[in-house]
Amino acid sequence: MDTTTLPTIEDIRTAARRIDGVASETPLVESPSLSRILGREVYLKLECFQPIRVFKIRGAYNKISQLASKKIVAASSGNHGLAVAYSSRLLGKQSTVVIPETAVREKADAIAEYGAEVVRFGKYHSDRESKAAEICKRTGAAFVHPFNDPDIIAGQGTCGLEITEQLTDFDSVIVPVGGGGLISGISIAVKALRPSSKVFGVEPVGATKMQLSLRAGKLVKLEAPQSIADGLIPSSVGELTLEACRKNVDGMFSVSDDGILSAMRLLVREAHIFPEPSGSAPLAALMSERDKSMLGKRVVLVISGGNVSIDLMRRLLSQEVTVSHAS
Amino acid sequence: MDTTTLPTIEDIRTAARRIDGVASETPLVESPSLSRILGREVYLKLECFQPIRVFKIRGAYNKISQLASKKIVAASSGNHGLAVAYSSRLLGKQSTVVIPETAVREKADAIAEYGAEVVRFGKYHSDRESKAAEICKRTGAAFVHPFNDPDIIAGQGTCGLEITEQLTDFDSVIVPVGGGGLISGISIAVKALRPSSKVFGVEPVGATKMQLSLRAGKLVKLEAPQSIADGLIPSSVGELTLEACRKNVDGMFSVSDDGILSAMRLLVREAHIFPEPSGSAPLAALMSERDKSMLGKRVVLVISGGNVSIDLMRRLLSQEVTVSHAS
Repeated sequence: MDTTTLPTIEDIRTAARRIDGVASETPLVESPSLSRILGREVYLKLECFQPIRVFKIRGAYNKISQLASKKIVAASSGNHGLAVAYSSRLLGKQSTVVIPETAVREKADAIAEYGAEVVRFGKYHSDRESKAAEICKRTGAAFVHPFNDPDIIAGQGTCGLEITEQLTDFDSVIVPVGGGGLISGISIAVKALRPSSKVFGVEPVGATKMQLSLRAGKLVKLEAPQSIADGLIPSSVGELTLEACRKNVDGMFSVSDDGILSAMRLLVREAHIFPEPSGSAPLAALMSERDKSMLGKRVVLVISGGNVSIDLMRRLLSQEVTVSHAS
Repeated sequence: MDTTTLPTIEDIRTAARRIDGVASETPLVESPSLSRILGREVYLKLECFQPIRVFKIRGAYNKISQLASKKIVAASSGNHGLAVAYSSRLLGKQSTVVIPETAVREKADAIAEYGAEVVRFGKYHSDRESKAAEICKRTGAAFVHPFNDPDIIAGQGTCGLEITEQLTDFDSVIVPVGGGGLISGISIAVKALRPSSKVFGVEPVGATKMQLSLRAGKLVKLEAPQSIADGLIPSSVGELTLEACRKNVDGMFSVSDDGILSAMRLLVREAHIFPEPSGSAPLAALMSERDKSMLGKRVVLVISGGNVSIDLMRRLLSQEVTVSHAS
């Protein structure tokens, strides 16, 4: 595939065949309780039920299964690192994942458990990208970018394809935006198959890199993105994901960490699911919607992942998590 | 439908069309974490994602939608009461649900919230059945039995039909047994469509009414059935459900309340779902399997419902629930 061109709906269909049996067709369920509380028909696309509890398996497997190299390198201490490790092992390839010197042990252990060699290096993302590039040069390994890649985007797009297959009609879908791979893929699928449905993105207020880039008409890099939603804080989106959002996305929300925690608590207590903070951002967006234009409408929230500690879940159920204001 | 004959797979297919859009096609997901821990391929059929968080909506709606009477009566303080209230309201019928004088307020409120008139009467199930019969005689209402009815069984059977559609191949399915409506329906569907797959039932050790009846070759009534799994403790199964189990069920498990709590905790902590105790019994059965004959096999656990308090979930996550031995 041309690496500088966005995937098409046909590329997404091809990706769906490629990942069949590896990534799950995840459930799409209505939450009657949330529908009643929020005055919208609230549907949840539960990527937290993927084998590795996060959507990233879709893109990573679609990409890595097409690579000739037996050696794979990624730079991520989070869900992308897990997805690359897991997919590489399934495909009989050796992966190396570069993580920060400062990463907590649990994250390193989780990636290593899926069979990757974990390399701790540097403090900044740029350090790790340099290190990854060096490893690739030295060993002939292939580097897998977390979002700015047509095969990654096509893989994530299979989530959107499933939504259109699972629900014949919906007004809006709200997607968390980190680097933008997920919303790029989903928006391509939705605009191809349900052109009248709207696609919205959501970013933490401390990491609005996509919104700034859309407004500037070019990539804007953040100095120190911050949020409890650790999947949504890369310093920049990519050229491809920016292009996809410019073409396909109908609007963007910004949500506070307090809003994310409120949403997370509501998802646990009312919908009985365990979302990670990033996966709770779409509900936070819906809860914060100022003009209430989605009232009475059918809205799909993409619960992008569920890699969250049992201790945080316990505290959410105990109402020990302080939320300074209701969103 | 003839009320003394078990439904066929065609009756179950008809029921599936009838309940379409009311009951959900619930998710069937693998739990990689449970598969790893238990050494089986563990799939979960998540009836806890039904609109009323329990499978009973399938049978109740299938039954009530075929009744000419505008007035419906049931005797149940639990999930059947919820299902009858909810289905009746959707169908524009008036329901009356008889519950024990001693039922906790939360249960009465939940049933009333779905639009039923709640009548508190007597202490024993026989009291409530008499009261329900009296109301039917006086008002011309139709009585809906919780399990011993071909339309109820056909409705519950749609759960089994879905399993065969969602998973092309599985070795066993394990189903909780209260009055036996769910396992009757599921076993009819599975034996018709996957004759080589096995169907197992599970009862609490304090309420083995189906196992005793199967052994005696006739209905055996328990004096004082007891279990934390309050959906599995009717004093007796029914003629129809006994016949279905005699014909179709390959084996039965008995599990302790401690085993159920262990299973519940494992489902919460590892699979990140919120099952009620009754819905956790199939995992307790798998954990207690003495001959380990399901090792390495693909097993479907029917998580029959999720009507469970937030407080119990919190305690399970906090390990505050005492389990006196590992099953």
